[in-house]
Amino acid sequence: MMWRERLTRVQADLRTRDLEGLIVTHPPNIRYLSGLDASAGLCVVGLTSSTLLVDFRYATVARDLGLRHGLDVQVAAGSLDTATVDLLRRLRVHRIGVEAAHLPVARFNRFVEGLSTGAVPSSTNIIPTERLIERMRAVKDADEIGVLREAGRRISSVARSARRWVVAGMTELDVAAAIDAAMREAGFERPAFDTIVASGPNAALPHARPTRRRLGDGDGVVLDFGGVYDGYCVDLTRTLPVGDVPAQFRRMFDAVREAHAAAIAAVVPGAATADIDGAARGVLERHGLGEAFGHGTGHGLGLEVHEEPRVSRTAPAGETIVAGMVFTIEPGAYVPDVGGVRIEDDVLVVEDGCELLTDVPIEL
Amino acid sequence: MMWRERLTRVQADLRTRDLEGLIVTHPPNIRYLSGLDASAGLCVVGLTSSTLLVDFRYATVARDLGLRHGLDVQVAAGSLDTATVDLLRRLRVHRIGVEAAHLPVARFNRFVEGLSTGAVPSSTNIIPTERLIERMRAVKDADEIGVLREAGRRISSVARSARRWVVAGMTELDVAAAIDAAMREAGFERPAFDTIVASGPNAALPHARPTRRRLGDGDGVVLDFGGVYDGYCVDLTRTLPVGDVPAQFRRMFDAVREAHAAAIAAVVPGAATADIDGAARGVLERHGLGEAFGHGTGHGLGLEVHEEPRVSRTAPAGETIVAGMVFTIEPGAYVPDVGGVRIEDDVLVVEDGCELLTDVPIEL
Repeated sequence: MMWRERLTRVQADLRTRDLEGLIVTHPPNIRYLSGLDASAGLCVVGLTSSTLLVDFRYATVARDLGLRHGLDVQVAAGSLDTATVDLLRRLRVHRIGVEAAHLPVARFNRFVEGLSTGAVPSSTNIIPTERLIERMRAVKDADEIGVLREAGRRISSVARSARRWVVAGMTELDVAAAIDAAMREAGFERPAFDTIVASGPNAALPHARPTRRRLGDGDGVVLDFGGVYDGYCVDLTRTLPVGDVPAQFRRMFDAVREAHAAAIAAVVPGAATADIDGAARGVLERHGLGEAFGHGTGHGLGLEVHEEPRVSRTAPAGETIVAGMVFTIEPGAYVPDVGGVRIEDDVLVVEDGCELLTDVPIEL
Repeated sequence: MMWRERLTRVQADLRTRDLEGLIVTHPPNIRYLSGLDASAGLCVVGLTSSTLLVDFRYATVARDLGLRHGLDVQVAAGSLDTATVDLLRRLRVHRIGVEAAHLPVARFNRFVEGLSTGAVPSSTNIIPTERLIERMRAVKDADEIGVLREAGRRISSVARSARRWVVAGMTELDVAAAIDAAMREAGFERPAFDTIVASGPNAALPHARPTRRRLGDGDGVVLDFGGVYDGYCVDLTRTLPVGDVPAQFRRMFDAVREAHAAAIAAVVPGAATADIDGAARGVLERHGLGEAFGHGTGHGLGLEVHEEPRVSRTAPAGETIVAGMVFTIEPGAYVPDVGGVRIEDDVLVVEDGCELLTDVPIEL
């Protein structure tokens, strides 16, 4: 039911743009519309019917999904691009969209050339579009919310276990391996990104990679990890101490915790994403840490670990949140040579505010 | 030295194409030219000087690399695309290339629009190019060969350990976790792709994902894993038995081992990639397993786990190998409901044949 509704909503959107179809090439968008998790293939959404086009490797699984989710299925005999051009010629449409943020120039040109050459040039025009399915994906439906809630519970249990590995003598790589094993044990298909374990001065880099550095007394350690569960990504960060941390570090921690709480309090339907970012940023500025917070406050979670909405200073003006959106809240503060703190949870926007999908104590 | 030579070779190639520059946006290509491992940023190679353009997050590391590797560095104040257009306007070139296989249509259009609008429209034309740096990357230099040799030794030691985990009662996921932990222990930064452990009938799918299935007596188990070492990827597959495997499986194994040996024997400078594939395929066809071998014989290894050259039936006609290329040899046979066998090693093409970078017994 949900699958057909997604297609119907794309079709309605196409009509408002005076398009007769959309060539979907971005894999997470193909998966969103068809359920197909494939490295190759594409989905051509027409106004009345849609086609999943795959190569022989995915023929069986595509036919099964097509039957269940209301898509025609075609298996390309040769290259997918040639088969796409043949399909477009049969559709005889005038204006069909492509996903311009993802489709490479070379492939776009092959489509255009394929349509314009041959005995009968086609009158199909290929029109760049952007964010059509991405904006739809930003608001989760009931099934997706169920999966994300379960994933949030599981990643929280991994985070609660993590405290026991953050002890003097372990290397950052040891801790990262323990976290990755725990995620697998908790039922995640794979990590959503390379796990970050950044200790002491290494934590001053927001995207540090784990090293052979051994944790030592007085270190603050940033643990940032995520897992993919049933195709959906969750993402969580805690900053934990090894022994007694210096007072300066403790003050940073308290400021980031306050910023994190302020941003979560600002999550309510209708709020501007820039204002949620501003809530966290304002707290850090009051603590003299405005310059130390060099990234955005959050990002959407779903089939991709970074998707819409972006919760940042540079979010499009007037962009607001609605119930059903799921994103991270992850303010941080980074001071070169000293260290860093980041605290990250995942929230679901609901009617009267937000629901936390992750649940782990925030304490030093 | 090597870094400047890479830039010089790109510049020579640009001259033959009547181009005055190249906008490099594909991250592995940026890394190849500058050493920068970043998720954002680009490199504009000009005929006499080149510029690494990054955002503030990579400013420090880019300045350091620029000094050492002979590139100018610019840090974008706002968006990278706007900064790129500003840089192109200052260069005042007529024809500059882009990487059409990677650059999305939307970004291409932003470049074109940025150049054509404003008080003074630019006379710069943006020209699609393909495989310019990829073809250069296919032939490894001495430093790269050193790294790949070391990575091959390390992945081989992981593969030799793997035999102990392939025992009745272990799940595919257990074995995958043990392999991933061993790769980290062996010094790999991360897996090069999701580790495959496919047992019994699951092995009939070339790209199976590990499941909760427990290994049982008589299973053949395909283990396919790879690691990234100092930025470079290696990739290895062995098929191991649990207890006594059926005679049919043993015959498949022997045929694939023979195909693997035939392909390796065909690796010599000047050989066509299609003929190397044909050597493996011919053996499998003689054993009645032609239809059971549904993928190509190999792919290049380097900064990406799948790169040039492609060793397959569909390789461009006349494409031949030269000394310095590094690629996999990985024939397989897959029979639905029965199982599958794949054997994969990594080879370096040398003057008089090839050197195996991986070294693990091939036996049931």
